[in-house]
Amino acid sequence: MKKLIALSLFLCSTLAIQAQDKHKIVFQLATGDEKEQASLIRQLNNVLNYWPDAEIEVVVHSGALEFMMTEKSVAKEAILKSLERGVTFAVCRNTMKGRNVKEEEIIQGAIFVPVGVAEIVLKQENGFSYIKAGY
Amino acid sequence: MKKLIALSLFLCSTLAIQAQDKHKIVFQLATGDEKEQASLIRQLNNVLNYWPDAEIEVVVHSGALEFMMTEKSVAKEAILKSLERGVTFAVCRNTMKGRNVKEEEIIQGAIFVPVGVAEIVLKQENGFSYIKAGY
Amino acid sequence: MKKLIALSLFLCSTLAIQAQDKHKIVFQLATGDEKEQASLIRQLNNVLNYWPDAEIEVVVHSGALEFMMTEKSVAKEAILKSLERGVTFAVCRNTMKGRNVKEEEIIQGAIFVPVGVAEIVLKQENGFSYIKAGY
Repeated sequence: MKKLIALSLFLCSTLAIQAQDKHKIVFQLATGDEKEQASLIRQLNNVLNYWPDAEIEVVVHSGALEFMMTEKSVAKEAILKSLERGVTFAVCRNTMKGRNVKEEEIIQGAIFVPVGVAEIVLKQENGFSYIKAGY
Repeated sequence: MKKLIALSLFLCSTLAIQAQDKHKIVFQLATGDEKEQASLIRQLNNVLNYWPDAEIEVVVHSGALEFMMTEKSVAKEAILKSLERGVTFAVCRNTMKGRNVKEEEIIQGAIFVPVGVAEIVLKQENGFSYIKAGY
Repeated sequence: MKKLIALSLFLCSTLAIQAQDKHKIVFQLATGDEKEQASLIRQLNNVLNYWPDAEIEVVVHSGALEFMMTEKSVAKEAILKSLERGVTFAVCRNTMKGRNVKEEEIIQGAIFVPVGVAEIVLKQENGFSYIKAGY
């Protein structure tokens, strides 16, 4: 019986530890404020310098859509570098539809998700820590 | 022994999967900014159109109290519709006390919680994903 | 076999419940807005009055650095009282470096962490609920 308890504890804790092997972070960017967008870029770099193999996804929706638009983004170069470092940028299709923005207007390399908030929920359900970008 | 390990793994993972069967989301609304409040309403609708049986609670506190006041809310109709769709609106009693607002001034159908932030913590402890509303 | 299933369920749920015995909360403060900083102080007091033995850590970074500077903070007295009540204030070294602020300029009793956002992630990985301070 003792063995059984020990085994169950071991299995449960092993599962918990495995889930944390690699740091997983989902950032939410919903702001059109360019200073706050620049702050997100700094944070991505700080985290990746500290944890080079962290798994990072930035979900972009609502007021932040222009951040991901080739012709309008103030952070295009930084986004391209972050993509090279393995960061995922996920753009909300609902927001795009609401503003009549098409896929080809978005910086290449981004992915598209149906509902930005739902994507953040899915990530949290899969063990990602959540960080709301901005001040 | 192998059977035991398999069983334990199965039980642990089953428990984890069951916890995610239904998407559970707690939104925090602390802002008096009416544009950000409107953005929350859009997000609630987007999520419910995508996941009709998601369990959603909006915790309202601090600067957002007027959002829930019958005579002052700019979103009263949208809140009533969200209530019909099953969204819970939880208003912080601490905030109400601090501003001398009474229960009868709050849109009917809302629930009351002693401390808004504590309610958000309880929800996270019970498997809800957390979304901070606003930009 | 039934006993085994019951036992495994019991162990898994016991582990889950134990993790929640004491409420653990990590607040993120990234704003230089003094009204939002004052709101965080109120929230800390509200939570501690409600849950006196909650484990609370406030991670301070980006625009919020002055909040923790002895000569510049508008909340110095409140921070000292929170420290006495057991709250941890963790200041981001990356932010300090970027603004050329030294340890001796920070309110005594604070701790220092290499990367503020990474600290928030570590806390979430260790069962802390996350609250983004501000409106």
